[in-house]
Amino acid sequence: MEAYRCILTKREVRTFLPQEVPQETILQILEAGRWSGSSRNRQPWHFVVVRDRQRLRQLAQFGRFARHVADAAFAVAVVVEAERDAFDAGRCAQNMMLAAWALGIGSCPTVMHSEAQAKEFLGIPPSRKLAIVLAFGYPAKKRKSLAERAVYRVLLGKGRKPLAEIVSWERFGATKFEVQ
Amino acid sequence: MEAYRCILTKREVRTFLPQEVPQETILQILEAGRWSGSSRNRQPWHFVVVRDRQRLRQLAQFGRFARHVADAAFAVAVVVEAERDAFDAGRCAQNMMLAAWALGIGSCPTVMHSEAQAKEFLGIPPSRKLAIVLAFGYPAKKRKSLAERAVYRVLLGKGRKPLAEIVSWERFGATKFEVQ
Repeated sequence: MEAYRCILTKREVRTFLPQEVPQETILQILEAGRWSGSSRNRQPWHFVVVRDRQRLRQLAQFGRFARHVADAAFAVAVVVEAERDAFDAGRCAQNMMLAAWALGIGSCPTVMHSEAQAKEFLGIPPSRKLAIVLAFGYPAKKRKSLAERAVYRVLLGKGRKPLAEIVSWERFGATKFEVQ
Repeated sequence: MEAYRCILTKREVRTFLPQEVPQETILQILEAGRWSGSSRNRQPWHFVVVRDRQRLRQLAQFGRFARHVADAAFAVAVVVEAERDAFDAGRCAQNMMLAAWALGIGSCPTVMHSEAQAKEFLGIPPSRKLAIVLAFGYPAKKRKSLAERAVYRVLLGKGRKPLAEIVSWERFGATKFEVQ
């Protein structure tokens, strides 16, 4: 898949086919995380891969919106050293999710609201921070039709804010865009 | 550029050619940030684009390792609502930097250590958080030779930790990988 297209089309996927992801594909996705840049190249991350179905179901109980983790082909818990590594964790997670998307695999970042319990379950030392859990799997739903997507966008507030609303030029608030 | 290749080859670039990036290319890069996923699709970001050379030089003074910002073709200050948005800011920044990379443009995330001053300079309300400044431009250096890269990796601790060192299976610390 072409890179720019991959970035623009990537959507969060929460409904997965009951189909395993080959181990070499999992490794390719982890490799994309491994090569992420980080502040002073500290690479503050550790990835805990969960593939066991029973463990995925248990893991799903630690987040308020984590039910889809139970049905994922696998999950990757991104563990970092401290809270200040959240930005780098985001870069690293995006790398893995985009690599997955390019390989036809959907994903969704999932917050573990009961972080202490999730960490205990995963064997993560209390001193480390569980930045996020990424759920991965082959998407179960077909691409929505244009009409469905319009409804989804309007009723559920999906889609994105227009660029004109989120971009300033030279100074915050100077949103007027002049074509040069 | 193919997506997976783009993700794996992306490196931080701090030395830029004195060459402008066309406005439509800047917009393409911003668009990649706009389409990033975020927690509950809140899209907590605002992008302040700085292109004026004098302002880029001034901006470069607010970070301890930000000298390259002075030579960038443009910079994007990623402003978010609060500290908790750092993870989403990382996803969004990675989208923009990968899109740039696919378009032949290098980039480097740059911390503004004097955050309050940088915010004032950019006109960012005190209530918002300046997550990062991304410097963009056409890379000035040719790709390093294999020998140069080996030296760089060994002497400067560049490259990345091996996958076996940063991945656990099912539980943190269970790093033994068994081929299935």
